[in-house]
Amino acid sequence: MRAAIINGPGRIDVGNRPDPAISASTDAVVRVVLGCVCGSDLWYYRGESPHELGPIGHEFIGVVAEVGSAISAIAEGDLVVAPFTYNDGTCPHCRAGWTSNCANGGSFGNHGIDGGQGEAVRVPFADTTLVKVPGPVHEDATMRSLLALSDVMCTGHHAAVSGGVKPGDTVAIVGDGAVGLCATIAAKRLGAERIIGLSRNPARQALAREFGATDIVAERGDAATETVLALTDGVGVDAALECVGTNQSMATAFAIARPGSIVGAIGAPHDVEVPINTVIFRNIGLRGGVAPVRRYLPELLDDVLAGVINPGRVFDFETDLDGIAGAYAAMDERRAVKALIRIGSAA
Amino acid sequence: MRAAIINGPGRIDVGNRPDPAISASTDAVVRVVLGCVCGSDLWYYRGESPHELGPIGHEFIGVVAEVGSAISAIAEGDLVVAPFTYNDGTCPHCRAGWTSNCANGGSFGNHGIDGGQGEAVRVPFADTTLVKVPGPVHEDATMRSLLALSDVMCTGHHAAVSGGVKPGDTVAIVGDGAVGLCATIAAKRLGAERIIGLSRNPARQALAREFGATDIVAERGDAATETVLALTDGVGVDAALECVGTNQSMATAFAIARPGSIVGAIGAPHDVEVPINTVIFRNIGLRGGVAPVRRYLPELLDDVLAGVINPGRVFDFETDLDGIAGAYAAMDERRAVKALIRIGSAA
Repeated sequence: MRAAIINGPGRIDVGNRPDPAISASTDAVVRVVLGCVCGSDLWYYRGESPHELGPIGHEFIGVVAEVGSAISAIAEGDLVVAPFTYNDGTCPHCRAGWTSNCANGGSFGNHGIDGGQGEAVRVPFADTTLVKVPGPVHEDATMRSLLALSDVMCTGHHAAVSGGVKPGDTVAIVGDGAVGLCATIAAKRLGAERIIGLSRNPARQALAREFGATDIVAERGDAATETVLALTDGVGVDAALECVGTNQSMATAFAIARPGSIVGAIGAPHDVEVPINTVIFRNIGLRGGVAPVRRYLPELLDDVLAGVINPGRVFDFETDLDGIAGAYAAMDERRAVKALIRIGSAA
Repeated sequence: MRAAIINGPGRIDVGNRPDPAISASTDAVVRVVLGCVCGSDLWYYRGESPHELGPIGHEFIGVVAEVGSAISAIAEGDLVVAPFTYNDGTCPHCRAGWTSNCANGGSFGNHGIDGGQGEAVRVPFADTTLVKVPGPVHEDATMRSLLALSDVMCTGHHAAVSGGVKPGDTVAIVGDGAVGLCATIAAKRLGAERIIGLSRNPARQALAREFGATDIVAERGDAATETVLALTDGVGVDAALECVGTNQSMATAFAIARPGSIVGAIGAPHDVEVPINTVIFRNIGLRGGVAPVRRYLPELLDDVLAGVINPGRVFDFETDLDGIAGAYAAMDERRAVKALIRIGSAA
């Protein structure tokens, strides 16, 4: 099969890989229909985080091609959404709902597991990892939103859940990337009344408003803090969602959060220092992390199929597998929020 | 009046101070009956945190001597518990329950406000700060437990509430000081089934067991982590309560917490680095801070008066105002868990 291969910083190629095959009774092989590039892939692309040379990509939807003998929840021909981490469903962490911390799990496109930016993937623990999409899907917009469920939408939702967003809240979204935009959808879905998006980019500002942002703050750093505090009568927001992973975005999130609130953080941290004095003396908590996508999938899938949420709108660039290097470059240069890769047919 | 005065690191004297008087209609003057020394006072005593020269002490119970014209909830002669911070009760933070973050509040023994280690205190916003103790109190043990409500018991409770302790949980208490011991009471009160106390001191271990600890771990650092993980089948605890404020105690708390749990932290931080990669990659949150004592007081007061909890047991040293330097020394040298100061008569 053909798949994207990372051959070092800035080097995304398309090459041949062995066709995935069932190796355990709990495996399935999925033929990838749509894949995409994640903001976290850019850390590897830029050489700012290590990634072994080989397959890459952890987000995909596809059609089940083959299942192991122990598989019962899915069958050949099913359209499925893959969470970006696989999980056994039986360890103590899975049973507690923390599927992304599965004692026997891992993520796609790492450690010998096929990536989602390729024609097919062997999925371990397929029964407890994959989620079947009921009924045929005819709309491309729906397919795009289903793809968004494999990571960004569920990760944005995790930021909002971690930040404790509840009906009537005023919420600030720090970061206007695909996850920040999906966190906007999630905050609105959880009942936030006022959503303040921090963004300097007109196209992203517009999408944030479409997703539910009621206010846009274009400043950064101390100026952004001052503006958000002014918007909240000096009180601060009920939840600040940190969707970047830099020290500045974390500092801003803590500075605009009101006492007693929680910073919901999902950005992969790079040189981030948590302001512990703010935690303790202002009673501002910190929760979040690698999203337990498998746990969130069923409810968010229902909302996608009902047309209640349209997270697929974050894809503003698309190409095929041969064009994947261009997809990375477009995101790296911020010409694209998020790039979709058309890989196979859903039929 | 006479009061303890801090004259620099290691220098606690008793001196004369002006008699407190009503200066605003919302003030009350309280004649102190019992005061005590807090673990955080030791940071000042040791010169590790700054404290202005002058009155000190933020924990006390006493009898109302005089009230301003706007006071209605308390009256002369009432026995009252003072939270260690005063609060106006009307600002947005107070209305949200975060009384210790009152926009117009502060703590006793600082910034021109009388300390609790003295014969009398002017209490700002007395109606919304002080809590009246119903009925006469005849038992000295009850008086000691009421004193514990002014800080340590409510702070231990805040650690447990912040850590999300719920019925059936396995909870670890990092720190065997007075607050850690009170956190043990709080965890049991909130329904924890298994409470693991980290302590090397036999007397403190015994008190922890009396308060509800089911297991004691005497190791520190990596050895403590290994033991707690072994006790929990490698899973980690449902809530780790950080009751010290050092980098090692914070690291231990994060290392023994299970994915999805929250470290409940109340230690005043000294050179603490929050392990952000653990937060994000293991989904372990951090909440806590300066306890909103005023919010917690009513329910915990009921339990003290009903004899359900006996936090006054943490006082294992007592003296009078003249002996206060000895009280600091005893705590500094770890000869005492917590020192009670008998200052005035309750009659």
